[in-house]
Amino acid sequence: MKIGFIGLGNMGAPMASNLLKAGHELTVFDLVQSVVDKAASEGATAAADIATVARCGAELIITMLPAARHVKGVYLEDDGLLAHVPKGVHLVDSSTIDPMTARDVAAKATAQGNPMLDAPVSGGTGGAQAGTLTFMVGGEDQEFAFARPVLETMGKNIVHCGGAGNGQVAKMANNMLLGISMIGAAEAMTLGVSMGMDPEVLAGVINTSSGRCWSTDTYNPYPGVIETAPSNRGYSGGFGMDLMIKDLGLATEAAKASGQPVVMGGLAQQLYQSMSFEGHGHLDFSAIIKRYMKDEE
Amino acid sequence: MKIGFIGLGNMGAPMASNLLKAGHELTVFDLVQSVVDKAASEGATAAADIATVARCGAELIITMLPAARHVKGVYLEDDGLLAHVPKGVHLVDSSTIDPMTARDVAAKATAQGNPMLDAPVSGGTGGAQAGTLTFMVGGEDQEFAFARPVLETMGKNIVHCGGAGNGQVAKMANNMLLGISMIGAAEAMTLGVSMGMDPEVLAGVINTSSGRCWSTDTYNPYPGVIETAPSNRGYSGGFGMDLMIKDLGLATEAAKASGQPVVMGGLAQQLYQSMSFEGHGHLDFSAIIKRYMKDEE
Amino acid sequence: MKIGFIGLGNMGAPMASNLLKAGHELTVFDLVQSVVDKAASEGATAAADIATVARCGAELIITMLPAARHVKGVYLEDDGLLAHVPKGVHLVDSSTIDPMTARDVAAKATAQGNPMLDAPVSGGTGGAQAGTLTFMVGGEDQEFAFARPVLETMGKNIVHCGGAGNGQVAKMANNMLLGISMIGAAEAMTLGVSMGMDPEVLAGVINTSSGRCWSTDTYNPYPGVIETAPSNRGYSGGFGMDLMIKDLGLATEAAKASGQPVVMGGLAQQLYQSMSFEGHGHLDFSAIIKRYMKDEE
Amino acid sequence: MKIGFIGLGNMGAPMASNLLKAGHELTVFDLVQSVVDKAASEGATAAADIATVARCGAELIITMLPAARHVKGVYLEDDGLLAHVPKGVHLVDSSTIDPMTARDVAAKATAQGNPMLDAPVSGGTGGAQAGTLTFMVGGEDQEFAFARPVLETMGKNIVHCGGAGNGQVAKMANNMLLGISMIGAAEAMTLGVSMGMDPEVLAGVINTSSGRCWSTDTYNPYPGVIETAPSNRGYSGGFGMDLMIKDLGLATEAAKASGQPVVMGGLAQQLYQSMSFEGHGHLDFSAIIKRYMKDEE
Repeated sequence: MKIGFIGLGNMGAPMASNLLKAGHELTVFDLVQSVVDKAASEGATAAADIATVARCGAELIITMLPAARHVKGVYLEDDGLLAHVPKGVHLVDSSTIDPMTARDVAAKATAQGNPMLDAPVSGGTGGAQAGTLTFMVGGEDQEFAFARPVLETMGKNIVHCGGAGNGQVAKMANNMLLGISMIGAAEAMTLGVSMGMDPEVLAGVINTSSGRCWSTDTYNPYPGVIETAPSNRGYSGGFGMDLMIKDLGLATEAAKASGQPVVMGGLAQQLYQSMSFEGHGHLDFSAIIKRYMKDEE
Repeated sequence: MKIGFIGLGNMGAPMASNLLKAGHELTVFDLVQSVVDKAASEGATAAADIATVARCGAELIITMLPAARHVKGVYLEDDGLLAHVPKGVHLVDSSTIDPMTARDVAAKATAQGNPMLDAPVSGGTGGAQAGTLTFMVGGEDQEFAFARPVLETMGKNIVHCGGAGNGQVAKMANNMLLGISMIGAAEAMTLGVSMGMDPEVLAGVINTSSGRCWSTDTYNPYPGVIETAPSNRGYSGGFGMDLMIKDLGLATEAAKASGQPVVMGGLAQQLYQSMSFEGHGHLDFSAIIKRYMKDEE
Repeated sequence: MKIGFIGLGNMGAPMASNLLKAGHELTVFDLVQSVVDKAASEGATAAADIATVARCGAELIITMLPAARHVKGVYLEDDGLLAHVPKGVHLVDSSTIDPMTARDVAAKATAQGNPMLDAPVSGGTGGAQAGTLTFMVGGEDQEFAFARPVLETMGKNIVHCGGAGNGQVAKMANNMLLGISMIGAAEAMTLGVSMGMDPEVLAGVINTSSGRCWSTDTYNPYPGVIETAPSNRGYSGGFGMDLMIKDLGLATEAAKASGQPVVMGGLAQQLYQSMSFEGHGHLDFSAIIKRYMKDEE
Repeated sequence: MKIGFIGLGNMGAPMASNLLKAGHELTVFDLVQSVVDKAASEGATAAADIATVARCGAELIITMLPAARHVKGVYLEDDGLLAHVPKGVHLVDSSTIDPMTARDVAAKATAQGNPMLDAPVSGGTGGAQAGTLTFMVGGEDQEFAFARPVLETMGKNIVHCGGAGNGQVAKMANNMLLGISMIGAAEAMTLGVSMGMDPEVLAGVINTSSGRCWSTDTYNPYPGVIETAPSNRGYSGGFGMDLMIKDLGLATEAAKASGQPVVMGGLAQQLYQSMSFEGHGHLDFSAIIKRYMKDEE
């Protein structure tokens, strides 16, 4: 399929590579020339601007951008996608942004005849490279059916979450819960160890009991418990704490907009912010456990 | 085996029944005559006081009491177990209490020749009746080996957590994490639904993602998601909120004693306390979600 | 002085009235015709749009708007103030908005030759009517000196907080602390009373001790302690809880933007949000104490 | 007056000195011989044990002990005060303990004919030396009238808080609010400064506005704002963070016992605990601001 791709950052670049490897024909754009050159060296056609991508003849255009203001810029400005894309071209935004903006942009695209999906991902740069991302997708059934085969080139778990914006809602809700349960896991593990338990035995008990969660059985923040977890490599790699702070910020903003309280979500945001403030924002978010460990501090 | 059993409350009574059904010979005591009579009608021998249980010729004595002060009373007072039990009799306390008291009592018992285990349970009154409790056991290996077959009569998951007191530590750490992740689950589910998602779809996404936890995949607090969860029967039955408050109180007390911070654990305790304060303490603890749902309030 | 005034809401209308009473010549605009008519009946000249106010020959134009998006609209859009106001006209924005927007608008105004102050107020509609508002003012010294006499017509406490945006920063920091200490006051008063103290005696002790704060000695949330406080009139009037939520939202947003943690500020925002969610957002913010009182719930 | 005094620690020793200076005849006891010797060198009579103090012919016996377990020991054990003190001798406990224990001990003392007051203090070791302590007193009117002149020798503010235990309740409620507002002050000051405000200007605005509290106008945690505050001497001296943690622990325990939620109080306890965990427990409690300051960390 002929596909346009805008945004070749840490996530976008490997996603585009996987599309190329799968045989799709890609026209790409990014503000950073070096990443465009690299994609071109892999077989993509370099576009000089957004309008060129819009008019490149693609059936589908995918965007992967850092934040809502970039999404608004790329889609809504005078030299942006919606101003130049022909009617009928499908649009997929894989950026992680707030649901309100996602819905607003999707409504404008749909109104002018461009069906649009929001499709934020989880799985990190590792998943982007391996093509094992999870896509949480919001939009109409037939749009989802159309885009699914393309998304499967980049991910292994493509979940339809409902109408426009629901991909963002699902990711936001999931990640807020993740941010909370990781701190809970950190507190439970360190409390237990401080009272004399072996961390592996404690994790074993929790993982067969009601405290069980992804943060204890797959990504345990206590070093030595899960071999593949970032806690076993100095909290490098993984899901950066500053990205978790961004996602918790989206959740608390959305909650504010809908008048919904998120008491633990709000506290989690501040506790990660406090760690980032002390210079740990580049570490995996499970490094929050450093706050609770004497030797690690 | 000849067994003594002290404490025939909501948990102790069905546990004793299961021991009787398994063919053990039981001598029982409780301050409430009616529950003693009921156990006697099932084949137990009624004892007039603790000292009688202590000297009934049992190889093993099990206690199941509401709180640490009762444990201290039953074991340490002048007319208590330690003052009257013959050397060599094994002791198992299945009460849920703080690890410090558990260790103190176990040290005194061991010092006078009575090996002792702490073995708090999870699984509630349903598990006690069905004989499917989880026992989290602290104490020496050979003690654990001795008591295990008896505990298996009452439970299906018997976990050795390490030395004396570690059964209490494990339960406390697990339940603190459970208390936290349940509130996280309540906030994530209600935030997502308030932003337009279907609760079953949202639970489906979370349960295959990094937010997955027992509170979402087995005991989801949002009505209509998990058929067997208390959220589907008006939050009746299950694990009472006031018991969760008790367990979080044990965790924050233990944290205070060991100088360990538990920021989310402390907040969770207060949020459940706030719901109990408004009259919901008798409901299942997942009813905390009422705080976040308009129609349920 | 010839003054333009845009925004005749609950706060702006009485502020404009006080300017008129002081003999100033006013040209006013609001989207709601009835409030414009009312101001006209008091002697103001009604303008048909923002551009008319901009070009009415005023030396100073004051704006009083609900939120940052309105400020951006009124100042920065094509038919807005900056596009039409003659060079040299002084601008004062009394809206309560985030410091980043305030600084951005002020920088644009200054760059085109219109000196600008941010001057948010405290004191509520009562203070606006009585002319006893506090103005927290950010901007250059000579601008402050120019505007001060006009502001003194509407307020009694005019504080210079430093450069552009600092009026917003000061109000935001003050109100965040206020939001926190009010909940603290509510918890301290209800804890003490629940343990057997008379509320007036308790307030007396606190007010001569280290717990003393405006929330205990001037605006005590416990009914019967301070005669003039909203707690003595069913929490009506005063400073609405939803406005406190707005201000805490500004503070947590600003903290996020500057990477600063505000752990208690974030929790306070959620606790008020939770009360508003249950339908109490229209009450004075000290009604947060209802969460902690049995009879009031 | 002939007075007995038990507990010559950092607070008790200077309090006893002030009683001696005022001309009272003192019989003293402490487990540490050196502090007893020092008091003796100032004119006190050294007693060999508690019973001797009880029977020394004093009209009034004052105790100043570290925690509830010491109070229970000194008053209730077989060799303690109540077992040996003659009927009619007045008792004053100035220890800071939980109200439940205070009421229990007072009830036992009263029942055997020894009227008793709880009279915890604030003002720290500085106030103890200078004789400027605040006494928060619980007990009967006529008891209060009897003890007041003696307490005035050691303090300048003697407040009657109601019946037995209410001195403890008042101190606990006040200090919980203090602990909360200090963190609020730290967050507000650092947020404002991080957004570009001068700390003195910000404190000036707050101190004339609704955020005003003892933690901003008398004990501001930001260095350079209040000359006499511990923030200006590296957070040495003052009210130790570990003592604040103890007082917040008393408050949350009392809240748990009376079923009252203290959401902010619980969070404050954990935040100070987290700082103490990292080794700052010996500093003044206002050092909590280090959590929010880059250069101080």
